[in-house]
Amino acid sequence: MTPMAANRRTVLTPQAEDFPRWYQDVIAKAELAENGPVRGTMVIRPYGYALWERIQAEMDLRIKAAGAENAYFPLFIPESYLQREAEHVEGFAPELAVVTHAGGKQLDEPIVVRPTSETIIGEYMAKWIQSYRDLPLLLNQWANVVRWELRPRLFLRTSEFLWQEGHTAHATYDDARDYAALITLAVYRATMVDVLAVPVVIGRKTKRERFAGAINTTALEAMTRDGKALQMGTSHEFGQNFARAFDIDYLSAQGRQELAWTTSWGSSTRMVGGLIMIHGDDQGLRVPPALAPVQAVVLAVKPETVEAAHRVGDELCAAGVRVRVDDRADVPFGRRAVDWELKGVPVRIEVGPRDVAENQVTLGRRLTDEAKQPVRLSAVAATVTAALQTDQRTMLEQATDAQDARITEVATVEEAAEAAATGWAKLPWDVVGEEGEDRLAQSAVTVRCLQRADGTVPERDDEPELVAFVARSY
Amino acid sequence: MTPMAANRRTVLTPQAEDFPRWYQDVIAKAELAENGPVRGTMVIRPYGYALWERIQAEMDLRIKAAGAENAYFPLFIPESYLQREAEHVEGFAPELAVVTHAGGKQLDEPIVVRPTSETIIGEYMAKWIQSYRDLPLLLNQWANVVRWELRPRLFLRTSEFLWQEGHTAHATYDDARDYAALITLAVYRATMVDVLAVPVVIGRKTKRERFAGAINTTALEAMTRDGKALQMGTSHEFGQNFARAFDIDYLSAQGRQELAWTTSWGSSTRMVGGLIMIHGDDQGLRVPPALAPVQAVVLAVKPETVEAAHRVGDELCAAGVRVRVDDRADVPFGRRAVDWELKGVPVRIEVGPRDVAENQVTLGRRLTDEAKQPVRLSAVAATVTAALQTDQRTMLEQATDAQDARITEVATVEEAAEAAATGWAKLPWDVVGEEGEDRLAQSAVTVRCLQRADGTVPERDDEPELVAFVARSY
Repeated sequence: MTPMAANRRTVLTPQAEDFPRWYQDVIAKAELAENGPVRGTMVIRPYGYALWERIQAEMDLRIKAAGAENAYFPLFIPESYLQREAEHVEGFAPELAVVTHAGGKQLDEPIVVRPTSETIIGEYMAKWIQSYRDLPLLLNQWANVVRWELRPRLFLRTSEFLWQEGHTAHATYDDARDYAALITLAVYRATMVDVLAVPVVIGRKTKRERFAGAINTTALEAMTRDGKALQMGTSHEFGQNFARAFDIDYLSAQGRQELAWTTSWGSSTRMVGGLIMIHGDDQGLRVPPALAPVQAVVLAVKPETVEAAHRVGDELCAAGVRVRVDDRADVPFGRRAVDWELKGVPVRIEVGPRDVAENQVTLGRRLTDEAKQPVRLSAVAATVTAALQTDQRTMLEQATDAQDARITEVATVEEAAEAAATGWAKLPWDVVGEEGEDRLAQSAVTVRCLQRADGTVPERDDEPELVAFVARSY
Repeated sequence: MTPMAANRRTVLTPQAEDFPRWYQDVIAKAELAENGPVRGTMVIRPYGYALWERIQAEMDLRIKAAGAENAYFPLFIPESYLQREAEHVEGFAPELAVVTHAGGKQLDEPIVVRPTSETIIGEYMAKWIQSYRDLPLLLNQWANVVRWELRPRLFLRTSEFLWQEGHTAHATYDDARDYAALITLAVYRATMVDVLAVPVVIGRKTKRERFAGAINTTALEAMTRDGKALQMGTSHEFGQNFARAFDIDYLSAQGRQELAWTTSWGSSTRMVGGLIMIHGDDQGLRVPPALAPVQAVVLAVKPETVEAAHRVGDELCAAGVRVRVDDRADVPFGRRAVDWELKGVPVRIEVGPRDVAENQVTLGRRLTDEAKQPVRLSAVAATVTAALQTDQRTMLEQATDAQDARITEVATVEEAAEAAATGWAKLPWDVVGEEGEDRLAQSAVTVRCLQRADGTVPERDDEPELVAFVARSY
């Protein structure tokens, strides 16, 4: 064992030993986040925030391409708004933070800190929508929301989190359903699979697991390295529930007053948690190249190679690579190498005195860190670009293989509960049913989603021959 | 008078008649924002938010170029944190919103919704900074903050607003001062002048106007079209006040434990209000091309020209122009033209049947909307690009001329108060002093900032021969 490998072992708790501990360790050592002073809140440190910014940028492009426009609605919602949709308030009441004093006075009506914005956005949709010409109305916002958490876990469950929430209104049921499906596939699946390299199982939530007030929730579920499920994003159809509660109606082309059909869809900083739990290994984070805020780090090994390192950095930058030059030649090389490995930077380029003398650099990859290779200076940009593309594909393949290998087809609820101790189970929804869901819940196992036999998302949960994915979850 | 000109007159209250009313009208008619349901809060509609997103993007680039990294700190701050810096809590206490209940229970310690984040960030800086090697620590966050407003005005003063707040810690007074100055010039002035085409007067705040807890506040002040001042951004030096309150200390290279020197700097959605009040005219908003989310709109005049309009749009897009094709051929042309004029889009390209027949388009510019001109199809991209560059320059020149023309040099406090009824006054700070500030305050007039005779920013307010800029303000 090399000294560096020995050194590594002391940095993180191995995944196999204690996965939740490993997760906490990575977050601390890679400087991603810390607990905030108020229960369940989170401080997102620069590297953690850079991951989120990259997710945002990729998601935002696709949201705009899907025709939705960004807007911003207030953080504060009158308490009375939430009460207009009965299921909605029932779902969120236990998690609310309430402002009772402001500007030095007690408020006449308490104010709720938004847990989600269906109600306040519904109120404005009702004002803005007059005729069928105003539909569809496609809005999105990037915002913070607050849901009081009793068992917080950084990124995955925090009392405040950052997210995007889309809210749309449509003239017909079909249009609302199709738009929610477009978001699920062209925005969420595309970002998660193509950028985060996270394979997702997409299906319909059971009634028990649906969003409060929705007639349908479609979820994108990913498998963490300890075999649990993590919900990476959801799209909801509300039918006319919110339109009724908030008077979102319109004059149809036929001159009739009609209720609109609304949807909402959200994805959050929890995706950063997913990224860690799906790709990370005992050496730290592994960030897929398409997402990485730093795709390649150039390490000046010695003070006399700082200039050469910057030249390599400039060249990679010109080739469109997101590059960082680490010129802290006064910090021991080994410590810096471990830092970048912990942070999961895909490509590491070392520029040492011998490299400079021989007109080359030494290239290491996070995915295959045994095999460092010398690369001629003239070939650096092409080699790095090719490595980034290959490693992006490899990471998706590895995660997909790992997921497939841990999904067990079973025949009974008891077998499902057993399989869910180490992975996911897949079985006929008929066999489970609402009664089976109750039994699974006793072992903290849930139906993550329902699919048709061909893998598509069912439109109703009483369709024949549906398949249920069953797992423990974060 | 053409029918369209007559039509226009009815849309907005003229500026000369009632400027605040004009401001409200533009915000409503250009669909920028609306009042939220909770007192003083604001709903930012898609076009208003697109302006903010563009400001953010330009500012964020420059913040990163200045070496600061984005992070995110919690919305909720323990009440006790604010009390650690005496001036700070005194300044903010009347504006705080307080959460007393969460998760269905009364909280042991009330939580403050952040009015600004010096305290909570100070707490973490203290944890992260150990030695001089950790300095400077340069952080920024994009966030919402809450300051209860008794006299809210959309964008300018709202109970919740969006902003960026930078927070930095340095080893020396000089380094902190220089970094705050860098932000003022290379981030704020550069964005405001080069992108927003807003000339700013930069100077030091008097003690009375300083940020709560700061030893120095530098402000960038712009002049609105009604001759008032609008603070567009500020940078604060805290000396060691916050470092003392939050134990932000470090081990120096000489092995001594030293207190750090901190700064903060902020700019907010209020800049959107500034943009409106500085560039808008009786026909609506005028958005400088460098900022405009839509730099050119291509209007298909008739259904049969929709395809041709999209071809022009594609060409402009390929030339790097931010373009929108308005193909709503079923909406009357006049109404659409007025809409885009209200929204202040710099270049309007009309594609009518005759244009198509003659291989041309008709180009109008927001700055000179009398003079529409035919442009050959082959010259569209070059003509638009040139027009955008010219109009950006022109807008800055116009705003600078308007500002210069309304700054009156005076000799006494009484003359300053009088001049401030219609514009800004400029007079020796010696003549004003703290006693003069009190007298000016009686006419709701304030010293906006202090400059040296050569226009630079003084390092102390007792330097000789300082000049005071005096005005009413938003």
